Amino acid sequence: VKPIAILAVAGALAASMCVALAQGAQAPKPMVRIAELEIDPAQLGAYKAMLAEEVEASVRLEPGVLMLHAVSINDNPAHIRLLEVYASQRAYEAHLKSPQFVKYKLGTAPMVKSLRLVSTTPIKLCAKSNLSTSGVAHCM
Amino acid sequence: VKPIAILAVAGALAASMCVALAQGAQAPKPMVRIAELEIDPAQLGAYKAMLAEEVEASVRLEPGVLMLHAVSINDNPAHIRLLEVYASQRAYEAHLKSPQFVKYKLGTAPMVKSLRLVSTTPIKLCAKSNLSTSGVAHCM
Repeated sequence: VKPIAILAVAGALAASMCVALAQGAQAPKPMVRIAELEIDPAQLGAYKAMLAEEVEASVRLEPGVLMLHAVSINDNPAHIRLLEVYASQRAYEAHLKSPQFVKYKLGTAPMVKSLRLVSTTPIKLCAKSNLSTSGVAHCM
Repeated sequence: VKPIAILAVAGALAASMCVALAQGAQAPKPMVRIAELEIDPAQLGAYKAMLAEEVEASVRLEPGVLMLHAVSINDNPAHIRLLEVYASQRAYEAHLKSPQFVKYKLGTAPMVKSLRLVSTTPIKLCAKSNLSTSGVAHCM
């Protein structure tokens, strides 16, 4: 084995470790948020249908949309809460330009009386893999 | 083939269809809730550690605990929000008796300044199977 070959291998190893370290340092931080909405009660059915469609399409089609959970509050069903989990700030910004989000945003604009966005920090997020009792747990 | 055998097969078929129908009618409804907590700021670190442990253990060990998501609000980090998804009311009641919930409840009682439980109805809940960008979407 020639010394030049050893140097080449050592150099390649050092370079790949350097890339791994740099990737570690830049590991994208998930972006986790709560949205609190109040909907015009007369349009609540139509709103919920559009929201359900947007939630399902976004998590199915966009790799960076990790979770979207939408619920209505039983004591006041026109009050909607969303928990939104994106892989990164960049994934969130891409979501804002997606066809499913643009369709939802334009279509529901006349139905939304108020919208409050709440920035959060995840403590622990865990879900069964298939959202049913037979799934295995994953956490982030 | 004797008539009595045909009757026996027909009877067994009718009985199994009947069981299937009854099971369909009784398909357990998921129980979905938001919890809003305020924690003593001096004990926030200890509280978050106990909560994270309880969330992970519950989703890993209890088939009926489908999701638990815990976040703190950035503008007021002592304010915690949880989204809780159980397979059924029965699964929720079993969770209340689980070692991990009992440990959390007793251990954190002196840390919790207020707790508000909010009953909700799911509109659409979707998550990637492994909570990362390579997962496939599941919705309920």
